[in-house]
Amino acid sequence: MSSPTTQSAAGPSSTDAAAVAAGVAETAGGAPSRLDGQGEGAAGRVWPVDPEQLVADPRAVQKVLDGRWAPVRDRARATIPAAWCEPTDHLSTEEHRALTLQRLREVVPTGEHRYGFAASATGGIGGDSVGAQTVNFEMLGHADLSLTIKAGVQWGLFAGSIQALGTAKHHERYLRDAVELDLLGCFAMTETGHGSDVANLRTTATYDEATGEFVVHSPGPEARKDYIGNAARDARMAVVYAQLVTRGETHGVHAVLVPIRDEAGSALPGVTLSDCGRKMGLNGVDNGRIMFDHVRVPRENLLDRYGQVAEDGTYTSSISNPNARFFTTLGALVKGRVCIGAAALAAAKTGLAIAVTYAERRAQFPKAGGAKGEEVTLLDYRTHQRRLLPLLASSAVYALAQDDLVAELHRVTNPVLLGAAPAPGPQKALEAKAAGMKALLTWHATRSLQEAREACGGSGFLSENRIAQLKGDTDVFTTFEGDNTVLLQLLGKHLLSEHRDALKGAGRIGQARAVTTSLVDAYAGRTPARAVAGFVGEVVTDISALRQRGAAKQAGSAPEEADSELFDRAWQLRMLEHRERRTLESLALRMRKRAQAGESGFTVMNEVQDHLVLAARAHLDAWVARTADAAIARAEDERAKVLLSRLLDLHVLSLVEADRAWYLERGLVTAGRSRELTTAVNALCAQVRPHALRVVDAFGLPQGWLGAHIAS
Amino acid sequence: MSSPTTQSAAGPSSTDAAAVAAGVAETAGGAPSRLDGQGEGAAGRVWPVDPEQLVADPRAVQKVLDGRWAPVRDRARATIPAAWCEPTDHLSTEEHRALTLQRLREVVPTGEHRYGFAASATGGIGGDSVGAQTVNFEMLGHADLSLTIKAGVQWGLFAGSIQALGTAKHHERYLRDAVELDLLGCFAMTETGHGSDVANLRTTATYDEATGEFVVHSPGPEARKDYIGNAARDARMAVVYAQLVTRGETHGVHAVLVPIRDEAGSALPGVTLSDCGRKMGLNGVDNGRIMFDHVRVPRENLLDRYGQVAEDGTYTSSISNPNARFFTTLGALVKGRVCIGAAALAAAKTGLAIAVTYAERRAQFPKAGGAKGEEVTLLDYRTHQRRLLPLLASSAVYALAQDDLVAELHRVTNPVLLGAAPAPGPQKALEAKAAGMKALLTWHATRSLQEAREACGGSGFLSENRIAQLKGDTDVFTTFEGDNTVLLQLLGKHLLSEHRDALKGAGRIGQARAVTTSLVDAYAGRTPARAVAGFVGEVVTDISALRQRGAAKQAGSAPEEADSELFDRAWQLRMLEHRERRTLESLALRMRKRAQAGESGFTVMNEVQDHLVLAARAHLDAWVARTADAAIARAEDERAKVLLSRLLDLHVLSLVEADRAWYLERGLVTAGRSRELTTAVNALCAQVRPHALRVVDAFGLPQGWLGAHIAS
Repeated sequence: MSSPTTQSAAGPSSTDAAAVAAGVAETAGGAPSRLDGQGEGAAGRVWPVDPEQLVADPRAVQKVLDGRWAPVRDRARATIPAAWCEPTDHLSTEEHRALTLQRLREVVPTGEHRYGFAASATGGIGGDSVGAQTVNFEMLGHADLSLTIKAGVQWGLFAGSIQALGTAKHHERYLRDAVELDLLGCFAMTETGHGSDVANLRTTATYDEATGEFVVHSPGPEARKDYIGNAARDARMAVVYAQLVTRGETHGVHAVLVPIRDEAGSALPGVTLSDCGRKMGLNGVDNGRIMFDHVRVPRENLLDRYGQVAEDGTYTSSISNPNARFFTTLGALVKGRVCIGAAALAAAKTGLAIAVTYAERRAQFPKAGGAKGEEVTLLDYRTHQRRLLPLLASSAVYALAQDDLVAELHRVTNPVLLGAAPAPGPQKALEAKAAGMKALLTWHATRSLQEAREACGGSGFLSENRIAQLKGDTDVFTTFEGDNTVLLQLLGKHLLSEHRDALKGAGRIGQARAVTTSLVDAYAGRTPARAVAGFVGEVVTDISALRQRGAAKQAGSAPEEADSELFDRAWQLRMLEHRERRTLESLALRMRKRAQAGESGFTVMNEVQDHLVLAARAHLDAWVARTADAAIARAEDERAKVLLSRLLDLHVLSLVEADRAWYLERGLVTAGRSRELTTAVNALCAQVRPHALRVVDAFGLPQGWLGAHIAS
Repeated sequence: MSSPTTQSAAGPSSTDAAAVAAGVAETAGGAPSRLDGQGEGAAGRVWPVDPEQLVADPRAVQKVLDGRWAPVRDRARATIPAAWCEPTDHLSTEEHRALTLQRLREVVPTGEHRYGFAASATGGIGGDSVGAQTVNFEMLGHADLSLTIKAGVQWGLFAGSIQALGTAKHHERYLRDAVELDLLGCFAMTETGHGSDVANLRTTATYDEATGEFVVHSPGPEARKDYIGNAARDARMAVVYAQLVTRGETHGVHAVLVPIRDEAGSALPGVTLSDCGRKMGLNGVDNGRIMFDHVRVPRENLLDRYGQVAEDGTYTSSISNPNARFFTTLGALVKGRVCIGAAALAAAKTGLAIAVTYAERRAQFPKAGGAKGEEVTLLDYRTHQRRLLPLLASSAVYALAQDDLVAELHRVTNPVLLGAAPAPGPQKALEAKAAGMKALLTWHATRSLQEAREACGGSGFLSENRIAQLKGDTDVFTTFEGDNTVLLQLLGKHLLSEHRDALKGAGRIGQARAVTTSLVDAYAGRTPARAVAGFVGEVVTDISALRQRGAAKQAGSAPEEADSELFDRAWQLRMLEHRERRTLESLALRMRKRAQAGESGFTVMNEVQDHLVLAARAHLDAWVARTADAAIARAEDERAKVLLSRLLDLHVLSLVEADRAWYLERGLVTAGRSRELTTAVNALCAQVRPHALRVVDAFGLPQGWLGAHIAS
């Protein structure tokens, strides 16, 4: 049972950015309340309610949606100019890049770019709050997405790497300049040859003890750094991810600071820069390519928090396992993924807000049999409601879940920002969840903006109505910072290892981690096939015992037999949780069967790949619903609770409806119940429809932020 | 049982465009062969086949896919330069518009723009072939989509209206100039206020018998002509759709020729032109807005094929029913819809060809447990196969169906082009099918290009790889030339009236038409609600009798009881046809029930709106599968037959899998069979995978036509 708290309302009213960040951070450390497996909490309320109950004050709803970092949001609302929300896709690439850099510089006086840095590492200007940084990024995502991504490149990736992977000497020499934009940089990880396979990057940084320098080199065209934001025009320095080689030995991927341009902007000797050119969107960000031809940098340029090279070339590290070191080095990426999901959610909200506003105003045909002048607007049509309202509901629900994810991010990574050693277990769990939520939210944005575009007809196609640019800018979100399909598999593998751990009893966290690693390795080709087969068998050793236990526990209360109602939250959660558990268990079973039949590691994993992705989605769906339910339970305003609860109903029932074949195939719903789902979603759409603009209002977007002619 | 013919291979080898068109036209008039309701034809072949059987000669497969107008395709392959396939989205709007107009002029020397005009109306230059025009439009859709749409505006809509709605005086004075680009024009139908509701356009053309002129006027901002292609920059004349008023009486929507710019390009007095500005795509097309302030044009400017105004203002028409006249006037739009579907299909094929080519080459991770150097490419992964291969298969299947649709378009409308009076019955059926197929194909393109973009990762986001522009250019296809959701309802209503007709026996075609009209009216508010209720009851009068008959006929052979196999074509078709019939019958039942309960016309139609759309889709899915099956049965090459048949399997089973909940809910498949569907789709993907590039090859895109860096 969730315990209502006032967490979400806490936070100082100060408008100084750093103070806001620090103040909120204090209140955001607690574990999010969540329901237990029985699906209690806000459950038990049964629809329909008195329609009057839905007439909530948008400000009360906003208070819930704003979540833990409401003061950060309010500050962003006050500082981000509405002009930044106007479409810019009529600009030429060079004009757009210049404007974006100019706006980046205009952020500096607000101080909001400092949230995510340690005060101790920046001469006191840092805000010491990962959570505030992430939420501020989301708010920027309502405005100019080129600016948002350029900010992410400069502050999140470039300066963020110096902060996270560097040590005092780097902080002193570079960090403040990077934060205040006196040093523009880029994050050179991705290579032309292999995008997702970071462990096998080809670029090398070879230590030359004769001169005390690293020689950074791209051994071939596949090793070219590619799609690097800031690289085509603005960056003077790159954080280069390369295989570190000392004394003929490779130590895996490390980050090295490499100057790439002189002050005038010309490429430095040995550095070949090129331009990725025009893109589908984000044309304010100058993506480019970098080749290194034996470029020498001083030994001090190695960002050496987790791995050091002595003057004589001796390599040392506090993390002896190279694999663990690699994942620690990459740990900084987790924040980026949470941020991309946040920006995607912001864009989805903006696009849906535009489409809903338009649909409230726009007539298509006069009303059949209606009185003269009686208008039917687009949003009165069922198909139009079906297109927009479930996505609107999901956006609100995801906002509640995202707030919990940010809280977890903050809890796990803020101590590391402040100097603590990373805690591998929580970090791993966070990474898995962040990977999954990034996939879920970015696909949600792609889908929402597509529906919003079509729902606005020809108007949606015109740049002046902004959805065109929102679509173009966000489309790459589903594949950058990790391809969504790969990320869901990452989560799926984490769940498998957790599952095995649960089967074997407590206290085996270390083992679970090893398992995850070996699975990832197996799929990525770093472990012989035989080892995979062994592992796969091991995962599912006790599966039948668990199934028996599960069956006993559930007797009489399994979804198929329960006398539950579609509008009963407990039933809804049970449906999602049953799917979550069952997809995972059957996945493990299938893997064991195939492995026992002697299939290769690749074949086993490839044959279950779609199942693995489904298990990850099922987990996320259940987690999101539980988390949102708990957040609603914590809310103070009764009508806000009711309205948000209806949105959660619509979100969950739409999910179950969309995958009702899965439930039908397993006898978990009857055919009649399945058809009721469609009726229920229709009814909920009709019930929510009069309150659609109320929900949009509760997103808390200031005047002018929609930036669309048709919604102004 | 379909009878194999050699239709698709017919056609002269001449390379003169008009001769090609004329020659092919002769062979394309026959009714397409189709299966009867029992789903025979190519059915009965059972998968799996010998894998060797799939190794078809791409040219043999291409011959089937090219269909009836293969010579038109070959000519386009020879004349469209590969340079037109290169991305142009880096250009400024003005540069892009200039380039597009230049390319439009470069089309003229090929003569391929003349296919769709009557030789008799153009001083002998016309090709007399609607079919050839449509297929040529599709081929252009593989290249520059701005050019394609601008060609559609100039030749299809502007010159096409003069051809279709004008008489000899207009043809003599304007048509050849319009065809040869000596007169650039636009098609001014859509208004700012109401996009889909053409019958209620606000612009007026009022006859002034004192001067013998029409006064064209926009009575308010809602009456502004909007999104008009060619209006912002190039058009000198507009075909204006307006309410015709003579002697104080309104005669409904008619088309009037109105000069809008002088030769230098300045707006003429009374004409206010503005620019829609930048768009998500198609920036080579200059969309604009037009307001008329009492603009006077001579009486002769009325395009008067279906309605004439005498000097004294007397109105006459060969079509006495104003509603029938309206639909005849709009009949010219049907070709536009078939063309948009065709261009969408072309873009989908191009995008998928790029993504499949890339997926064949691109490695993500080294193969787990594989030998050193053993590459796994993206297309080896199940999720990647699942993303691309069903869409690739659908593209081939839709090509076969589209060829039949074009044949029907040609059969019904080519006689009208050549001077015959339109035949309302066949025209209505064609319009319904064209509306539906336009929706199906444009959504297919949106989905295919989205998957293609994501499947290419960051590379897919770069303009140099073309998918970005293909996405931007085609996104509006789902809402222009009729919003897809509205178009599917149009088809659904047509099916309802056909259904009623079937219930009442033969010889009631006229009645059925009236019913359709009344239904459209009802939803559009032109009929009192009470009349709708009556109609709705009437539609379903004999429904229970039909159900009994159906049950008797099907006894022992209903899908749920048949001992059929997933790979048995007869079973596949039965599944789709059962869904087609049942969605329609239950729709009629629901409507009757609601109407009998006294609900208003709007409420009845709105409550079943999603059902109506589903019935339309179900009809299209069944029709497409039947048509493709028949086309495959006609093919000569055995291996081409086998490969295409596997693609049809993949298409159909993916459809059934996607909507398996529907079948489960109705007990038409068991849970076990439902789960087999997923296994079967996976297996088919794996079976088709080695032949993916073969299918791409069979699309017959010349060297350089992919226009993508990653697929060059």
